[in-house]
Amino acid sequence: MTLNIIKIGGNIIDDELKLQLFIKNYAQLDGHKILIHGGGKIATKTAEKLGINSEMIEGRRVTSSQMRDVATMVYGGLINKNIVGLLQKVGINALGLSGADAKVITAHKRPVKSIDYGFVGDIDGVNAEFLAQLLKMNISPVLTPLSFSETHGLLNTNADTIASETAKALAQIFDVNLVYCFEKKGVLSDSEDDNSVIPQINYDYFQELKSEGKIFAGMIPKLDNAFEALKFGVKKVVICQAEELVSAVLNNGAGTVMV
Amino acid sequence: MTLNIIKIGGNIIDDELKLQLFIKNYAQLDGHKILIHGGGKIATKTAEKLGINSEMIEGRRVTSSQMRDVATMVYGGLINKNIVGLLQKVGINALGLSGADAKVITAHKRPVKSIDYGFVGDIDGVNAEFLAQLLKMNISPVLTPLSFSETHGLLNTNADTIASETAKALAQIFDVNLVYCFEKKGVLSDSEDDNSVIPQINYDYFQELKSEGKIFAGMIPKLDNAFEALKFGVKKVVICQAEELVSAVLNNGAGTVMV
Repeated sequence: MTLNIIKIGGNIIDDELKLQLFIKNYAQLDGHKILIHGGGKIATKTAEKLGINSEMIEGRRVTSSQMRDVATMVYGGLINKNIVGLLQKVGINALGLSGADAKVITAHKRPVKSIDYGFVGDIDGVNAEFLAQLLKMNISPVLTPLSFSETHGLLNTNADTIASETAKALAQIFDVNLVYCFEKKGVLSDSEDDNSVIPQINYDYFQELKSEGKIFAGMIPKLDNAFEALKFGVKKVVICQAEELVSAVLNNGAGTVMV
Repeated sequence: MTLNIIKIGGNIIDDELKLQLFIKNYAQLDGHKILIHGGGKIATKTAEKLGINSEMIEGRRVTSSQMRDVATMVYGGLINKNIVGLLQKVGINALGLSGADAKVITAHKRPVKSIDYGFVGDIDGVNAEFLAQLLKMNISPVLTPLSFSETHGLLNTNADTIASETAKALAQIFDVNLVYCFEKKGVLSDSEDDNSVIPQINYDYFQELKSEGKIFAGMIPKLDNAFEALKFGVKKVVICQAEELVSAVLNNGAGTVMV
């Protein structure tokens, strides 16, 4: 049975119209689906208003205890519950989950090497069995980017990684398509040209693009994640624009497909 | 099969030590259980810091759109996920839910009569079937005081009422004990004397206490709720102090039992 796992980021969450349009497109996807959302700018704005500074160490953002509270409020509360509400309004029986809920995403606090990232989690496990039970009850889980450690509690965690780890864990049970919704229409061969989408990339071609420096540096971790997911049994990884979600999932000529 | 439904309020949520102790006591209760938490002072403090004024009309607090966002952040995010995390740490497989999640608590916006309460919900239904499925999976739901309307989205809702409506809905499936954790040790016959707990109150005695003005005015809606729940098949309603939760549930001489 097919399961579509879709990840959306700040560019959609921060824009009410884009979010509404995304929800409509998401509702059109048949069958089992899981949504993973990122953070967006609301957390930073809320932290600023609350007088909490984003700590930066050696140019990297760290999650202090206060920032963790803001992430729990904004990611786990405001963004997650609003998305669940919007999905319910279009008839999708959504259920919002942090990593702590039914221990869906367990993690450990990132070890301190040169930088102490604070309350940031590296994922140890995904409760695939529970997510599969929800899907079989026709419930659509909506995951927020917070994982859980028994020692440290909730931990700020990259939504792309939650998406790929969830896809890998569920690939044992379902035929999983993993879809990253992105600002651009896909992976571009020319970063200046929005219409230069590469329709399909295999591992060898990815290595070639990397070695020739033809790929935007920010895309490399996303693609590394994608090929890692394929190695673990995910059927298809797609990078596309949210507006083209339905075509991209249906293999209808939108986005970039990693095979 | 017995199901304990426990409601805690701000006096526990706002006090880290009391909350830790409550979690320990809650973990000691055998079998199926559902926790319902109220709001606490963090929402008001967060709203103040964010520069959002609590609107008051004719002396009653109303939930503006901005206050609803704060409630969604603080009740649905910070408080709910922290409690879920604390429960997971003591081995209880908790799952946090707002009314929108799997449409657990559906409601309509309170009709405007003399006062427009804003985004406040009056409950229409409880998804008892889904809650029962979770309980059978050994999951302990943790409900936040937000209900859901397809027209208006998330709605601020009294936690006492969520507790009694949930108890009534689940009384068709389980033998339900409904427990309100309270500042005092129970219903007092003398509001000045903390040790004047009335061990048991039936409906006639409640009417007598009311007509004699022997009962603290703030307690009356709680007790009305309690007797309403009994009428709908709830086995037992208890009002007790969180510290005495285990004794009160075991009928061991703590708190006030409504029969």
